[in-house]
Amino acid sequence: MDKAALAAFLRRDFAQVADDFRVERADETGVCLRLVAQERHLRPGGTVSGPALFALADVAMYLAILSRLGPVALAVTTNCSIDFMRKPEAGRDVLAEARLLKLGRTLAVGDVLVYSEGKPEPVARAGLTYSIPPR
Amino acid sequence: MDKAALAAFLRRDFAQVADDFRVERADETGVCLRLVAQERHLRPGGTVSGPALFALADVAMYLAILSRLGPVALAVTTNCSIDFMRKPEAGRDVLAEARLLKLGRTLAVGDVLVYSEGKPEPVARAGLTYSIPPR
Amino acid sequence: MDKAALAAFLRRDFAQVADDFRVERADETGVCLRLVAQERHLRPGGTVSGPALFALADVAMYLAILSRLGPVALAVTTNCSIDFMRKPEAGRDVLAEARLLKLGRTLAVGDVLVYSEGKPEPVARAGLTYSIPPR
Amino acid sequence: MDKAALAAFLRRDFAQVADDFRVERADETGVCLRLVAQERHLRPGGTVSGPALFALADVAMYLAILSRLGPVALAVTTNCSIDFMRKPEAGRDVLAEARLLKLGRTLAVGDVLVYSEGKPEPVARAGLTYSIPPR
Repeated sequence: MDKAALAAFLRRDFAQVADDFRVERADETGVCLRLVAQERHLRPGGTVSGPALFALADVAMYLAILSRLGPVALAVTTNCSIDFMRKPEAGRDVLAEARLLKLGRTLAVGDVLVYSEGKPEPVARAGLTYSIPPR
Repeated sequence: MDKAALAAFLRRDFAQVADDFRVERADETGVCLRLVAQERHLRPGGTVSGPALFALADVAMYLAILSRLGPVALAVTTNCSIDFMRKPEAGRDVLAEARLLKLGRTLAVGDVLVYSEGKPEPVARAGLTYSIPPR
Repeated sequence: MDKAALAAFLRRDFAQVADDFRVERADETGVCLRLVAQERHLRPGGTVSGPALFALADVAMYLAILSRLGPVALAVTTNCSIDFMRKPEAGRDVLAEARLLKLGRTLAVGDVLVYSEGKPEPVARAGLTYSIPPR
Repeated sequence: MDKAALAAFLRRDFAQVADDFRVERADETGVCLRLVAQERHLRPGGTVSGPALFALADVAMYLAILSRLGPVALAVTTNCSIDFMRKPEAGRDVLAEARLLKLGRTLAVGDVLVYSEGKPEPVARAGLTYSIPPR
């Protein structure tokens, strides 16, 4: 699935959160996903909350898996280890760069770096594992 | 801080999410926090989403730290490793049992088990680390 | 498999490390495993090293899985998230309390607390996931 | 500290494990560390064990921190989340590529990819956090 196909999938199968995210890039190196920061994602001070960063990393990796497996997959997150390293910049979207490191028969593993838009230093990193149902 | 003090703290300092959570217990063994499951926490099928479980675990451990340090603290989550083990039951609240394992000068560490209300088997477990600012 | 069966399994299938460990308890609540601390497990100062604590947690959880599945299993560690919370006491063995939280068809998940013998506060905690091959 | 300084540090301060490791590269992008695979690092079948991969990742990130802070530092590992993704190749050394993502006042965070020498696909990935003592 390319960028357009992933965006269509988000709108159809994740209608509840589709407005939160925008696929910026999807190619063989992985997926870049934007969190369109809105009031409900913010903590006092205007910075994106931890749960919103977690959700962004989770969806980005999910899309990276789908981009390889196609829309039939129903992968389930089984583990996420996330490090919050810096406070996101207030008033900026955050971007997740997801990279698939293993796509096995039953497990997929990847990692994600999250940045405040336009800033070079990551605000968070995550390693994620998904269970892939038998096809 | 006891149960009432933690609930008041949530309402005052986390107004944005205070309606999502209810402190069920706070004592020397830790804190039990309920996620009052609402539409925005659910995935298709009516089960509580991963980010909502993450947020519950994060807030539960935060309150467990505050119950020991008092309301002056401004602890920041630095790491969370969460395992999603079972699908939560549709139509039920989820409860987090947070246990503080270390409260050091600069770091606090604890773990959390999350259950669908009334079910004995945990749906998720998490280990969390917080950075505690100099007092 | 009970305590004696697990000990026999360790000696036969993990001869290389069997002398490092001793099964202290194995019952429905989990497995308690001792690291018999020797020179090669120690850091300068006489405290047990991080890799030795990791190995202890990993073997303890592996035995907790075997105690339920029997000796035919060939589970493989897929993830470990470990927090090092306190320096182990010099000159003491360390003990791991492993608890199985999920034994599914393809994945097993559990957590471990590690103590210096005779001390109440844990030196480390770990969450571990194992992949279980099709039977 | 450059490659030669890190190697000298390993020999002097980590004499017990210095023969296990060889610094392959140290520059502004991070540190590459080799595990010189020996009998004691192997599992039946000749593949490098999980604890040996953990130790490799841990030492590689430690050296990446020292390369920036200098030899006075006494950083302590506080968390490691490691994913074991593929079985290492029998009879080959393994190489860790450590990358420092944050070097703060009290915490350093980085990640590591581990490869069997000459193979493009990683066998393990790890995220690690270190506590840095006040200077």
